[in-house]
Amino acid sequence: MIMSSSWVTAAAVMVFGVTMGTATVQAASPEPIQPIKAAKVGDPALVELGKKLYFEPRLSKSGFISCNSCHNLSMGGTDNLKTSIGHNWQKGPINAPTVLNSSMNLAQFWDGRAKDLQAQAGGPIANPGEMAFTHQLAVEVLTSIPAYQAEFKKVFKKDTLDIEQVTKAIAAFEETLVTPNSRFDKWLKGDKKAITADELAGYQLFKNSGCVACHNGPAVGGNSFQKMGVVAPYKASSPAEGRMAVTGKDADRFNFKVPTLRNVELTYPYFHDGEAATLTQAVDIMGRLQLGKQFTADENAKIVAFLKTLTGEQPKFALPILPPSTDATPRPRPFE
Amino acid sequence: MIMSSSWVTAAAVMVFGVTMGTATVQAASPEPIQPIKAAKVGDPALVELGKKLYFEPRLSKSGFISCNSCHNLSMGGTDNLKTSIGHNWQKGPINAPTVLNSSMNLAQFWDGRAKDLQAQAGGPIANPGEMAFTHQLAVEVLTSIPAYQAEFKKVFKKDTLDIEQVTKAIAAFEETLVTPNSRFDKWLKGDKKAITADELAGYQLFKNSGCVACHNGPAVGGNSFQKMGVVAPYKASSPAEGRMAVTGKDADRFNFKVPTLRNVELTYPYFHDGEAATLTQAVDIMGRLQLGKQFTADENAKIVAFLKTLTGEQPKFALPILPPSTDATPRPRPFE
Repeated sequence: MIMSSSWVTAAAVMVFGVTMGTATVQAASPEPIQPIKAAKVGDPALVELGKKLYFEPRLSKSGFISCNSCHNLSMGGTDNLKTSIGHNWQKGPINAPTVLNSSMNLAQFWDGRAKDLQAQAGGPIANPGEMAFTHQLAVEVLTSIPAYQAEFKKVFKKDTLDIEQVTKAIAAFEETLVTPNSRFDKWLKGDKKAITADELAGYQLFKNSGCVACHNGPAVGGNSFQKMGVVAPYKASSPAEGRMAVTGKDADRFNFKVPTLRNVELTYPYFHDGEAATLTQAVDIMGRLQLGKQFTADENAKIVAFLKTLTGEQPKFALPILPPSTDATPRPRPFE
Repeated sequence: MIMSSSWVTAAAVMVFGVTMGTATVQAASPEPIQPIKAAKVGDPALVELGKKLYFEPRLSKSGFISCNSCHNLSMGGTDNLKTSIGHNWQKGPINAPTVLNSSMNLAQFWDGRAKDLQAQAGGPIANPGEMAFTHQLAVEVLTSIPAYQAEFKKVFKKDTLDIEQVTKAIAAFEETLVTPNSRFDKWLKGDKKAITADELAGYQLFKNSGCVACHNGPAVGGNSFQKMGVVAPYKASSPAEGRMAVTGKDADRFNFKVPTLRNVELTYPYFHDGEAATLTQAVDIMGRLQLGKQFTADENAKIVAFLKTLTGEQPKFALPILPPSTDATPRPRPFE
């Protein structure tokens, strides 16, 4: 196929907008939500290693909990629980956010305490309430397994394996967990039959009611911290105080990262405490507490219908096969 | 390709032996272990449904434990723990056997209390120490999800979904979890370079020491119940009494199903109580307790080397994507 340079230029203008002086104007897409693109895999060997580590329960003290336990890629990258189950069946303090499209977040965790996915990945491994391991033990386990040693060496060209390599590989895999081609994205790209009249009406309500003030951009959220309970206070079942835990500023109390709404049909229950079991409840509460707006049942149903158009293609890959432990590998200690 | 009928006859004789009166004589393969073949999928839609159910944590009270939690297909179809972790972090009474090649077992569970995989599949779902659910609730959960309803209806051609359908589908998936083409199978089929001289020496020791008395056939075990501790008693850390729990006969005390040795490199730790952490330990204890034989370190190493040639091709499939719960789906109750 031969493209003329003028065709390429026209396409670039259409997709990326026109740069005018210092300002970029979106030419074809004035919508507050933009389509997402399939992930580009820069280093397939790194991603493949990260996929193994994502499914690796030997990164936990028990040998039972992996990243995928709470960010289950069979279930929208979540555990679909109010709060997660950690080592020794400890009840987590907060709802596990989806890993899907999480590379688009301005920071990781509900309070944004990790600047990126690599910084996040080390957290649960060493959290006594989650995987309850240590970075040192995780590295010892992996180092004791020749197949992992060889794979890390091939990927990182270094003789020693360290936790930065582990978290870098996990983050590289997570960056591939993007869900393009939702029906709403198809609509955004011009396929006007991709969503129904009710779903479109729901989108109009979503836009006109102010939901887009926070839920915007390619991830339909994930790009700002906002107060939970603007118009009326939110009575959380969680003690989490949000962004204040990071900044120390009282003004940041109950400020949480706005969650992405992509795949929201799959990522129930909702809110940082997981107290909204259904989308209907979540839309109702958001309307009242954030916008001072009581949606009618019909409006609520239309917004929910729109939200379900945000389910994209789920990551598809073969379940990784993990290399066996050796006689030298430290054994899991689930009941200690 | 054209085959003469005489070629076909010769091949049949070579592979299947010659029937002489009532006795069948193996013509070309006098070995006590036979190669296994890749699974044949009779009903792909049934298997696909069973695969989803195998990974379905909503078959547990907590919404956190699936078949794959303890029979992890990333790790040889086991959890690589002495005994499994059940609901509320309960410590299981016995080591989780591998699901790989389990369709070849004469019965399921260590004590053989389930006659086949379908009978087995319902056990852990309703076991208060494992998934802690009920069959009725499992069916309610699945019935509340339109995508499951449609898939069951397509597969079973019935209007109502029941637990027999659930366990039948899981069993059908498990029947596909066969691991052909191990290096030892290649050797059995005539590729004399498929194993090393040490591995072959290990196999000769395995045969000549009497291990094959119990570990024989295509699954290298799985086809008989035998007493744990023949020559000397085994001091188990588990209270399990084996086959006696099923038959009520005192003679069956400490009789356990002989485990398959296929993929034994992946299915550590060993024995019904998981007390042997390494193959070296397992071979040593088996030699002493079952055969009255103390293997030298060199003999032990050779047998272990042989055992590692039994690792076959692991099942390769895409991680299933599970359909989301609806507003009507009963929610998990992990902390009740």
